[in-house]
Amino acid sequence: MTVVVSDSFFERTVANLRSAWRDIARWTRPEGVAVRPDLPGEDRPTIVRTIEDCLAGRGGEVSARARAADLGRLYLGLSPRGRQHFLEILARQFGLDRGALDDAIDAYRNADDDNAVLKAEQRMQDALVSRRARLLTQLTTLPDGFKFLVDLRAELRQQLADDPSLSGLDADLYRMLTAWFDVGLLTLRRIDWNSPASLLEKLVAYEAVHEIESWDDLKNRLGPDRRCYAFFHPRMPDEPLIFIQVALTSGLADSVQALLDASAPDDDPSKADTAIFYSISNAQVGLRGISLGNFLIKRVVDDLSHELPNLKTFATLSPIPRFRWWLEKSLASGAHKLLTGSEHEAIRSVSGVHGAKGGLKRLLEDPDWFRDEAVAKALRKPLTRLCARYLLQEKQGGSMPVDPVARFHLSNGAQVERLNWMADTSANGIRQSAGLMVNYLYRLRDIDRNHEAFAGKGKVVASTAVRSLLGE
Amino acid sequence: MTVVVSDSFFERTVANLRSAWRDIARWTRPEGVAVRPDLPGEDRPTIVRTIEDCLAGRGGEVSARARAADLGRLYLGLSPRGRQHFLEILARQFGLDRGALDDAIDAYRNADDDNAVLKAEQRMQDALVSRRARLLTQLTTLPDGFKFLVDLRAELRQQLADDPSLSGLDADLYRMLTAWFDVGLLTLRRIDWNSPASLLEKLVAYEAVHEIESWDDLKNRLGPDRRCYAFFHPRMPDEPLIFIQVALTSGLADSVQALLDASAPDDDPSKADTAIFYSISNAQVGLRGISLGNFLIKRVVDDLSHELPNLKTFATLSPIPRFRWWLEKSLASGAHKLLTGSEHEAIRSVSGVHGAKGGLKRLLEDPDWFRDEAVAKALRKPLTRLCARYLLQEKQGGSMPVDPVARFHLSNGAQVERLNWMADTSANGIRQSAGLMVNYLYRLRDIDRNHEAFAGKGKVVASTAVRSLLGE
Amino acid sequence: MTVVVSDSFFERTVANLRSAWRDIARWTRPEGVAVRPDLPGEDRPTIVRTIEDCLAGRGGEVSARARAADLGRLYLGLSPRGRQHFLEILARQFGLDRGALDDAIDAYRNADDDNAVLKAEQRMQDALVSRRARLLTQLTTLPDGFKFLVDLRAELRQQLADDPSLSGLDADLYRMLTAWFDVGLLTLRRIDWNSPASLLEKLVAYEAVHEIESWDDLKNRLGPDRRCYAFFHPRMPDEPLIFIQVALTSGLADSVQALLDASAPDDDPSKADTAIFYSISNAQVGLRGISLGNFLIKRVVDDLSHELPNLKTFATLSPIPRFRWWLEKSLASGAHKLLTGSEHEAIRSVSGVHGAKGGLKRLLEDPDWFRDEAVAKALRKPLTRLCARYLLQEKQGGSMPVDPVARFHLSNGAQVERLNWMADTSANGIRQSAGLMVNYLYRLRDIDRNHEAFAGKGKVVASTAVRSLLGE
Amino acid sequence: MTVVVSDSFFERTVANLRSAWRDIARWTRPEGVAVRPDLPGEDRPTIVRTIEDCLAGRGGEVSARARAADLGRLYLGLSPRGRQHFLEILARQFGLDRGALDDAIDAYRNADDDNAVLKAEQRMQDALVSRRARLLTQLTTLPDGFKFLVDLRAELRQQLADDPSLSGLDADLYRMLTAWFDVGLLTLRRIDWNSPASLLEKLVAYEAVHEIESWDDLKNRLGPDRRCYAFFHPRMPDEPLIFIQVALTSGLADSVQALLDASAPDDDPSKADTAIFYSISNAQVGLRGISLGNFLIKRVVDDLSHELPNLKTFATLSPIPRFRWWLEKSLASGAHKLLTGSEHEAIRSVSGVHGAKGGLKRLLEDPDWFRDEAVAKALRKPLTRLCARYLLQEKQGGSMPVDPVARFHLSNGAQVERLNWMADTSANGIRQSAGLMVNYLYRLRDIDRNHEAFAGKGKVVASTAVRSLLGE
Repeated sequence: MTVVVSDSFFERTVANLRSAWRDIARWTRPEGVAVRPDLPGEDRPTIVRTIEDCLAGRGGEVSARARAADLGRLYLGLSPRGRQHFLEILARQFGLDRGALDDAIDAYRNADDDNAVLKAEQRMQDALVSRRARLLTQLTTLPDGFKFLVDLRAELRQQLADDPSLSGLDADLYRMLTAWFDVGLLTLRRIDWNSPASLLEKLVAYEAVHEIESWDDLKNRLGPDRRCYAFFHPRMPDEPLIFIQVALTSGLADSVQALLDASAPDDDPSKADTAIFYSISNAQVGLRGISLGNFLIKRVVDDLSHELPNLKTFATLSPIPRFRWWLEKSLASGAHKLLTGSEHEAIRSVSGVHGAKGGLKRLLEDPDWFRDEAVAKALRKPLTRLCARYLLQEKQGGSMPVDPVARFHLSNGAQVERLNWMADTSANGIRQSAGLMVNYLYRLRDIDRNHEAFAGKGKVVASTAVRSLLGE
Repeated sequence: MTVVVSDSFFERTVANLRSAWRDIARWTRPEGVAVRPDLPGEDRPTIVRTIEDCLAGRGGEVSARARAADLGRLYLGLSPRGRQHFLEILARQFGLDRGALDDAIDAYRNADDDNAVLKAEQRMQDALVSRRARLLTQLTTLPDGFKFLVDLRAELRQQLADDPSLSGLDADLYRMLTAWFDVGLLTLRRIDWNSPASLLEKLVAYEAVHEIESWDDLKNRLGPDRRCYAFFHPRMPDEPLIFIQVALTSGLADSVQALLDASAPDDDPSKADTAIFYSISNAQVGLRGISLGNFLIKRVVDDLSHELPNLKTFATLSPIPRFRWWLEKSLASGAHKLLTGSEHEAIRSVSGVHGAKGGLKRLLEDPDWFRDEAVAKALRKPLTRLCARYLLQEKQGGSMPVDPVARFHLSNGAQVERLNWMADTSANGIRQSAGLMVNYLYRLRDIDRNHEAFAGKGKVVASTAVRSLLGE
Repeated sequence: MTVVVSDSFFERTVANLRSAWRDIARWTRPEGVAVRPDLPGEDRPTIVRTIEDCLAGRGGEVSARARAADLGRLYLGLSPRGRQHFLEILARQFGLDRGALDDAIDAYRNADDDNAVLKAEQRMQDALVSRRARLLTQLTTLPDGFKFLVDLRAELRQQLADDPSLSGLDADLYRMLTAWFDVGLLTLRRIDWNSPASLLEKLVAYEAVHEIESWDDLKNRLGPDRRCYAFFHPRMPDEPLIFIQVALTSGLADSVQALLDASAPDDDPSKADTAIFYSISNAQVGLRGISLGNFLIKRVVDDLSHELPNLKTFATLSPIPRFRWWLEKSLASGAHKLLTGSEHEAIRSVSGVHGAKGGLKRLLEDPDWFRDEAVAKALRKPLTRLCARYLLQEKQGGSMPVDPVARFHLSNGAQVERLNWMADTSANGIRQSAGLMVNYLYRLRDIDRNHEAFAGKGKVVASTAVRSLLGE
Repeated sequence: MTVVVSDSFFERTVANLRSAWRDIARWTRPEGVAVRPDLPGEDRPTIVRTIEDCLAGRGGEVSARARAADLGRLYLGLSPRGRQHFLEILARQFGLDRGALDDAIDAYRNADDDNAVLKAEQRMQDALVSRRARLLTQLTTLPDGFKFLVDLRAELRQQLADDPSLSGLDADLYRMLTAWFDVGLLTLRRIDWNSPASLLEKLVAYEAVHEIESWDDLKNRLGPDRRCYAFFHPRMPDEPLIFIQVALTSGLADSVQALLDASAPDDDPSKADTAIFYSISNAQVGLRGISLGNFLIKRVVDDLSHELPNLKTFATLSPIPRFRWWLEKSLASGAHKLLTGSEHEAIRSVSGVHGAKGGLKRLLEDPDWFRDEAVAKALRKPLTRLCARYLLQEKQGGSMPVDPVARFHLSNGAQVERLNWMADTSANGIRQSAGLMVNYLYRLRDIDRNHEAFAGKGKVVASTAVRSLLGE
């Protein structure tokens, strides 16, 4: 006896699903977002009903996951306003089952032997998995399901600041993504000029530190004396999660413009003694809070030291993004003893303003101040010293440096190695940090000790040269 | 200023780690387990100290993960007794921080606005992550780290029955593995005669239903009229997690010996109208409880129906593993009305024993009973009918069928389609199920309804033919 | 007894060779040609000695091939003048062994039975393999050896016109490359935006028909409604040999500017009914004479018609490169009856010149003539008609069309389908063909018949519409 | 205007071709040869007509190649007798165009300047390409076309000995295959236990030296202290052309049974100092005469010496296939001074026969002679000495050793290093070489010199130890 397949399960689910997923896959591609303007499901009751339908789990787990595609389709088809409603509904109406949680807590409090405690603990763990979390888990089987969830969180985070009621949903997504983007699941891949153009295009889009201006600029950054690495997730093979750009040089680099000069000849990488990490960019807003940079740097150090045994120094050439912000705040607030007497004098001589701080402030107001040799000469010493003070001594909330890039590298166990004057003379570099850049040094034997000192006591380890700027 | 790398972080961690991981990788391979007999770390205080050292997290997350390799190395080098101790210590001494949990519960109970509730919920979630769970998470970056954790749980489960105190550790591993082996992360791959010999060897080892007797047998099972599929994890690319074997036939198969006859000519798969799932085997004990079989069957149905549009029927040819066990128990307990009058008579005529049940019992005691044509003829009707009763009506704990294979397929939404007499005449087939096998039919349009009926009310859906055996 | 490897064969050959090949590989890359200016081997005697040394075959075939690397190195290190000498020496001093050939011919002429004839034929075949051919064969084992030989022939062909004594060397290379680039050895690969940037860069360099102006232009040509395919050789996996660009459209395309407009929205390829081949470019000068275009077009037709069953028409949008050249020659030579009376009149009315031909000549002298609507209107009919005459009736050397693109497509069995006015208004399009372009139609059922008519009798098959322009 | 595709070119050619090729692909697979017994084209006139139809080249080159599929289909469908006819027809009726050849020779003889000579040479080259060669070239575009041609030649060679008229066809195929299987086109791939089972199966089938007895035997030969390499053609990726098996050992291996003992533990390959090539097998009869073994050995030496720098010695453990044959012939022919006096005495003492040669002959007649310790002891010295004589001094046709394996390795530049008593005690080893085996040593610094001595003067280079056996 054989059976004819007709208006069946698969017609409603797997078959339809295929085209649904195909649609979704198309929608999630940037070029085809194609938000349907007046989707019938735009209204809250429809959204709630669709979510509840998914959660009912009718027909078992496979059917439930198939149905979750409807939800994905619904979401992707919504207008921006509709998506906001969707996220609010998910956050507010599909949280924990508080009754189950209370029961579990009672069971825990009343447990009278080890076994009962163990069981109650597990009941609490189960009760603390929200209904929205169960739902979102089902979306992984969508085509590009992991990317869907990462993007969902990216959209959520835009609303989060304005609406703290969304924080539970954000926490759920963070917890899931932390497991699914565990560094053990990721692969490190080198990116070079033989990589797909469609991938290289994303580097251009995601580069957060020094903008990539053209395909020539990009090709130069992928030349024989450069390296670029990224972490990839097995289910997002075309999407870098985080990537790092490295220049192989002789000695520490002291200027990002020199480093990125496409007209400079390529160096022979096998002769380089130094690897300069000059850009590290997170490519996925939705993975906020999941720390991958630390692993990326150390994996790359490991890879490079095997490939190129001549490399002896691993260091960054890093921006100092909030130096000018801090400096101006300090100048404005009349911070005491910001400048020494001789610095005072030098500034006065070029600004013609008596109050040194006022003079400094006025000088820096001209975006081209650094092109005036006399001004640059006068400011070099005070600004470099103040920058050392900013990085080593200025703390935020007690123990952490004000500078976010410093926090990242110091927490990784690096040390402040050298300050570089006129190292970034782009408009942005002048605006953020008066053209200064810093090398953080990853000296392998010190990494643990540096991290401990920093994590425990907020101590910023720096080279003798930098400390001597502060008279230490 | 450049820095010479010497007695550094990486000498202690990454560098040493490499060889350590290489060792571990070797140890985890079956052929080289090479348990070191008198490892110094065998004693409990050393184990505790090493675990605590890992958990201290000195030097940041990368260093902590590097150190976790020591733990992996320690474990793999232990004797079986040492491993037991290790697991006991992990389970009993590195559970939750109960103080933190109690504080979080108090905060939850005392929360007076929505925001405070949200925060308290998250505190509880964090407090419910045990210290051993934090530790085990770090092991994913080991080479073969996911396999290590799966194998760890496999070993744990051997002890679990005897020692309920291990159940918290098992629950932790289950929860982690559920996330990391989410079906959305897995890939379905077809296995055929072009697959690596090292992979095919594993099919032979893991096949749980009908033993693969030789490479010829294996090649026959991978012939043009057969299909074999498995799920793989991206970080365990050489390890099938679960695999299914399919025969492409004309009509429902009614004998596994005929199906596996290597001397039979290959059929043209494009002409087959039926796909028979004749074996589905879990390959990883450590993934117990993580349901993949349901997804596997439905993904394979989907794939096959696209590849071979002529396929109209998707069904199993399944063993009935506990039928004889139930039958003998029923005969022994003097179950009422087990046999009808005419069955009684038929059995008496061949057994020469007056009590029909005694006669049946005595007949079946001879492992070759089925070779006697008269006996086989006499038993066919009663045994087939009793088997239908066993599958459709006999319940365990109220609502679930006694038969584990039945529970699996019925829960997936299949129905009992046909019982096959003399379908498995291997020694095992006769011993387990008196040679009977069953076809479960996956009729696509009925799957949801069948699942709902079964999951909700324990209703076993069966074909008219099978139901008529029971006079329904 | 064991043996220590020291100043050995491999030191001279395989080991040295490795670095030699590595060097060669570097030299053959465009960016690193780095011709050594004063190589000692620049002089003729050294070149002759090195070639003879290679041909001596000392140490057996493997050693001989290893030594051939020296030759490759020698050649790549030569100055342009040195390379000329090298090729001349190879062509003139390392030809056939005429004595052996004469002996073989004598043996053939004197052969008195079938067997002797067979043997003599084979002796002649062997004697007709020149010494330079034996030598060049050994170069295939160089890294990038096939590319080396293709490039060698490309360089040779630059000298060939001036020096007929090189034609034997060219014929040798042609014969070898014909075997090694047999279409059966090649793979057809689709090129798209996921292809390596380093490969796409070569498309830009090799595109011979419509220049690719930017990466945006390139991306548009690889969009969802476009296809690009190339043939590749298994030992030159990064080098396209010939590639074709296809647009998927509704109806025949009539303007290349519209086709290449990057701002136009992408069409849905599954709805297209027509595939327009708008560019086909040979990428390797060194493969001149080895016809691949014919195979490429028909393989692509086959692939596309399977991928997109809606496609019903396969046609080109082709340039007419020598139309203006022919027209001006005809105008200059006072060709009789070039224009009809009414055409005469129309031209006079816009040119103000009495002699129509003079008027036409003068009008076309203004490179922007087509922007004057009145002029364009007046010229449309006469130029279109003359273009039909040029393609269908004007022959070169008796039977072949003057137009090289026409010769290619007509020989492939295509027919002239439609002439398109103002189809290429680029400076080049106006200059070559007065802005006209032609669609050649590959109608599958007619290809053999068209080819036979064309190859046998020089008959140009054209659509009724085009023929009617000529009053046929 | 668009065109509907209907009863078109592609219906006759490409489309039909697809299924034709699919059929052919199936037929060429061993399992499905399925020779159709009574093919209509079996008779000679039909064969001739089909060949001529192909050669007519109607419709251009693409159509011609498409039509060549009919020929392939025809051939594969023929009975063995039909295939013989086919090959005879091809060889006898589709040879050279003798008229064209004679004209070309005349032109050559009458050429009165260099240019005319060059042109005449090329005319002769063209005229020496037979019509069957043009035809066979078109078959490369068949699916598995290169395999088809290799197999065609393999079948041809079975007939060749009986029918010298086929030698022209064989020479054509040899010439083509020499170009298409040039070593520069091939890839060296390592084969191990992770290779596809379908490939490993072929090793078992093709192994020509020491039969592979089971999958366990095979797995042992692919263990960590073994290496297996093969050359592959890019269009026959699943077919090894020639493969070599290597054991990594400490010191020269002296027994193949010890080497292949699956119960022996694996050695650590990184500690081995010697690579023993113990088996080299040609897998394609159709490539007879195209020397690949020499390249294979030297590429493998190169690869291994990079992978395992501890390897100092590269040597074979080789059979001596015709030693017993030569010995028995020598004994029968009453060769003078075959045995010394003391050998005479020793043999008499165990055989009880007075004539030493008669005694030796009689002793060896017992296939188990070597199990008798006294006999083995008595024969060791004389047989080892005679074997040295056989290898070093006995020549065939003046200068080449009688032993074919010796000819291969000596021509490659190896030397006779050591004779091993009781090295192959399999029935075959005793029968062929009285259990003796020989190590040929590839000492890198001597390879060129050894080859030159051997190729030029037939000199067999041997170690002092082997030479001293002969009193040298």
